[in-house]
Amino acid sequence: MRHCNACGHAVEFRVPDGDHLPRHICPHCGHIQYINPKVVVGVIPEHADGRVLMCRRNIEPRLGLWTFPAGYMEASETTAQGAAREAMEEAQVDVHVDGLLMVINVPYVSQVYMIYRGTMRGDHFGPTFESSEVRLMREDEIPWDDIAFPTIWNGLRQFFDDRAKGRYEVHSLDLAFRRKPPLRDEVAGDAATP
Amino acid sequence: MRHCNACGHAVEFRVPDGDHLPRHICPHCGHIQYINPKVVVGVIPEHADGRVLMCRRNIEPRLGLWTFPAGYMEASETTAQGAAREAMEEAQVDVHVDGLLMVINVPYVSQVYMIYRGTMRGDHFGPTFESSEVRLMREDEIPWDDIAFPTIWNGLRQFFDDRAKGRYEVHSLDLAFRRKPPLRDEVAGDAATP
Repeated sequence: MRHCNACGHAVEFRVPDGDHLPRHICPHCGHIQYINPKVVVGVIPEHADGRVLMCRRNIEPRLGLWTFPAGYMEASETTAQGAAREAMEEAQVDVHVDGLLMVINVPYVSQVYMIYRGTMRGDHFGPTFESSEVRLMREDEIPWDDIAFPTIWNGLRQFFDDRAKGRYEVHSLDLAFRRKPPLRDEVAGDAATP
Repeated sequence: MRHCNACGHAVEFRVPDGDHLPRHICPHCGHIQYINPKVVVGVIPEHADGRVLMCRRNIEPRLGLWTFPAGYMEASETTAQGAAREAMEEAQVDVHVDGLLMVINVPYVSQVYMIYRGTMRGDHFGPTFESSEVRLMREDEIPWDDIAFPTIWNGLRQFFDDRAKGRYEVHSLDLAFRRKPPLRDEVAGDAATP
């Protein structure tokens, strides 16, 4: 970030009065531009037969690897609306968003993942610009070694664990460092819960 | 947003190739600048005697009204770390963040609130630049008509309701429209949960 998005002047990077962190400040018009963490919203779409819908990424990063529908939250939507939107955009699937499954913090890239459970409405799905292949998979068909991101890996793992127990909860997970694929005991699971 | 923050050139507002929503695009360098929803992190600090720590706002908006510590999440922190940071900044209080209490979507201002329960470490707290007055309050002392934001009102209400039941859960709430003070039956409570 080198220029002011209000007036176009070159910005300075310093601590504003009354603040405690350096910000991008415009010396010309005074505008302060903040860098905010991003919210990623996703949903695990479950078919009536228990299989879940997985997408093979057709775009970088992680081209060719697998994920459930997830992407950046847009302005003026809720997290659940965003998750349903991503399902339609990435897999052509109409999903009823059932409930929040997991909040995953990824501070090393300033992201917060909000992962939902969802139920497919009907049987329609298919490939899209973002997904070269979209497939229903049983748990034993999930390509655990070819999952696109550690957040997706952990969300899926939690989903199947909760389902096996017959009880869904809302889980919190902080991914402490960059590693792929992550092993469950290397991350701080449910760190914020007693 | 009128100028490119990479090169300073005036931006255009149109749908990029392969996208579905208009974005701020620089015709000079090609940079696309996205507007992302903001995460607000907060914590309800509970004293060993059951009272909660409330702050009287010393800054606009809602100068003079009451809140628990909450503010914009910073880059490179987790939501729980952000909540603890806000407690220190706004109330000089050291809080152990216990668990997530509530996710509140406020799509009309593109915000997602992540509200935590927390336990005060020790007895120290006090006023700050952002809080003219910081006070421990019993539930019957909470100034429900002078709470700064509907998100704060709902978070507090949920906290006391769960505590009375003896069981904390993670709640989801979507605030559907702008109103102050909100009444619980006018908002879509636990909308995303079955």
